Amino acid sequence: MDTLWDHRYAQRTQAMTSSVIREILKITARPDVISFAGGLPAPEIFPVKEFAQACDVVLSENPSEALQYGITEGYRPLREYMAGRTEREGVKVTADNVMITSGSQQALDLIGRILINPGDKILVESPTYLGALQAWSAYGAEYIAVPADENGMRTDGLEAALRAGPKLIYVLPNFQNPTGVTLSLERRKQLVQLADKYGVPIVEDDPYSALRFEGEHIPSVMSLDAQMRGECEACYTGNVIYLSTFSKILAPGLRLAWVVAPPEVIFLMAQAKQGADLHTAVFTQMVAYQVAYDGFLDRHLDVIRSVYHRRRDIMLESMSSTFPEGVRWTRPKGGLFLWVTLPEYMNAEEILPAAVDNKVAFVPGSPFFPCGGGENTLRMNYSNATDDGIREGMDRLGKTLKQFIQ
Amino acid sequence: MDTLWDHRYAQRTQAMTSSVIREILKITARPDVISFAGGLPAPEIFPVKEFAQACDVVLSENPSEALQYGITEGYRPLREYMAGRTEREGVKVTADNVMITSGSQQALDLIGRILINPGDKILVESPTYLGALQAWSAYGAEYIAVPADENGMRTDGLEAALRAGPKLIYVLPNFQNPTGVTLSLERRKQLVQLADKYGVPIVEDDPYSALRFEGEHIPSVMSLDAQMRGECEACYTGNVIYLSTFSKILAPGLRLAWVVAPPEVIFLMAQAKQGADLHTAVFTQMVAYQVAYDGFLDRHLDVIRSVYHRRRDIMLESMSSTFPEGVRWTRPKGGLFLWVTLPEYMNAEEILPAAVDNKVAFVPGSPFFPCGGGENTLRMNYSNATDDGIREGMDRLGKTLKQFIQ
Repeated sequence: MDTLWDHRYAQRTQAMTSSVIREILKITARPDVISFAGGLPAPEIFPVKEFAQACDVVLSENPSEALQYGITEGYRPLREYMAGRTEREGVKVTADNVMITSGSQQALDLIGRILINPGDKILVESPTYLGALQAWSAYGAEYIAVPADENGMRTDGLEAALRAGPKLIYVLPNFQNPTGVTLSLERRKQLVQLADKYGVPIVEDDPYSALRFEGEHIPSVMSLDAQMRGECEACYTGNVIYLSTFSKILAPGLRLAWVVAPPEVIFLMAQAKQGADLHTAVFTQMVAYQVAYDGFLDRHLDVIRSVYHRRRDIMLESMSSTFPEGVRWTRPKGGLFLWVTLPEYMNAEEILPAAVDNKVAFVPGSPFFPCGGGENTLRMNYSNATDDGIREGMDRLGKTLKQFIQ
Repeated sequence: MDTLWDHRYAQRTQAMTSSVIREILKITARPDVISFAGGLPAPEIFPVKEFAQACDVVLSENPSEALQYGITEGYRPLREYMAGRTEREGVKVTADNVMITSGSQQALDLIGRILINPGDKILVESPTYLGALQAWSAYGAEYIAVPADENGMRTDGLEAALRAGPKLIYVLPNFQNPTGVTLSLERRKQLVQLADKYGVPIVEDDPYSALRFEGEHIPSVMSLDAQMRGECEACYTGNVIYLSTFSKILAPGLRLAWVVAPPEVIFLMAQAKQGADLHTAVFTQMVAYQVAYDGFLDRHLDVIRSVYHRRRDIMLESMSSTFPEGVRWTRPKGGLFLWVTLPEYMNAEEILPAAVDNKVAFVPGSPFFPCGGGENTLRMNYSNATDDGIREGMDRLGKTLKQFIQ
């Protein structure tokens, strides 16, 4: 190999972990493997007909805008539409509170750009979303891990963690990736109050709240923050940056997500985004708006929820009948993932090759722990396999696990 | 204003200049102003019918792939297609040399991520592309400016500049933004040799080479580098990172560009891109491939070239008849821009408000100079106004300039 490029790279690249996600996506591409490893939505229910119609409408009614350069903050009608949906939560929000990003991954990256200096500490639940760790480690972030249980981030240790001086708090309150667990209302309120007390902003990453198929919706952290402040101003200026995405409610192949935040945060994120990619594709923004705005999105969410509900049920039933004793798992009320805890002596990374030999895949849990641990845990995705695929795959996985039971 | 967010931002944000481009885009949005300020392609000739057909084909033949998560490096057939087009230049290139990015702005940003540490010096022509300065200043880059003339970057001072130890060389060899000037073949060869001698990589930013409407094509810097090395390996492993974009040859609203580089550079850029936005939208990549692959792109380039050729001619003629004496300008043989030099005592930033009062706009030249200077220069875009709009706009601008002539 040519060594022309040796020693040229910035120090910073060393902070980028060799990506576990990348390697997983390679395994999932093998057609004979039933993969519960990815986080892919069910492609059978992508609203293809509606997308085709929307492309037609956009390209016949307004091609010059759709194919031209656009505004960094995003296509205004889409920002207004998302502001309107956010107001359903009882937060006073205008389009100036909203920015469109190229997926939530970009929103995480932009937050890193504007808020994180090398050595800054981020308070996260443990385990937490790998993509956030990856985005922020590139900016030299370090992590303060707060343990989570079946009600999400444990708030009993939160105040001590806040005293360690984190730059921000990162939380996935609904059907968390990777555990599927939801943060309780009581804990959300404590979180909002403690964050305010210590003056630490909260990043609320919420890709899945619209995918609840069981139980009652719990108010967003942002809405509780707004409520606590008793704001009656023109628009939200509180302590929370809220992220969500079209990837799980329409289609990930568009790379469309949105941020809701105080206008001054949106302004700085837009400045950062301009250097990063100028703006997100206008065409896909207009198509997504065209698909969503007229009530279709809510009807489509019913379809997704019913499919994921069924698949979760099948996965839970299959686990009960095929997994060996001593294995525990979460029972998520929405979203795409559940979390398996093996007996302490088992190591999910060591089991994965045997699973792939048996033509089934999962994600080992330890990379989701920012400060180590979790070797006996793994993440399972139930949105992307067929009903029969889940049964067959869980059968294969059950057999694999039994090979390792002592 | 709430001060909740004061003192929270990372130091790095101070390096982001308040964006001149942003402010310009706001002016260009006013319908009564004839703007030569932007860098927008002509929307009248966007291949709308072909896009509509391509959307139909993609969504009827392969919706599950188009709307699903994809590979960070990009849609493989598109990477192969761009590799094939690059080989027309005589460089041995495979899909492993190619990555798709969300516009060339993202490619610039990713280069910053993998190559630039705070305080690193970048060797640039002066003036140079503002978006690159914006992308790299966020990583703490400093600049070594090498003056340019009607044949591009002057190579007589290049060796001295290289002795100052730049991390990379940034050059726009064809119809440069902002000047419209093209780097001569002789200078390209000198550049390649000197870069190799000093072991400094070259970033060749080439959005416009396919838009030559006059004169002979000059081999790319990458192809000259490959030639010098006499490579006959499996694929290019030389000293150049080459960037180009679909924004100027199909449509900017898709946010699609490509990078050609040694595979190890592509690997690191893909790692960085994964943290930045996971991947570029699969749907737009498939649509662009569908529009382009079957020979349409070359036919469409003929249309663009003929329109821009005519508009450049009209602008040059209008300048000759309306501009006051003492004003000089470049005569680009392709691309979207030309460059105006006013008498030394005039200041383009001071003239701009008077021009906007007269309902015409341009970009003052000084922000394109990384180390200051150029107050008496300005950039003119001729691709985005109609023929009559150019005549009328130049008339307004000529009158404005005459107000300031002493």
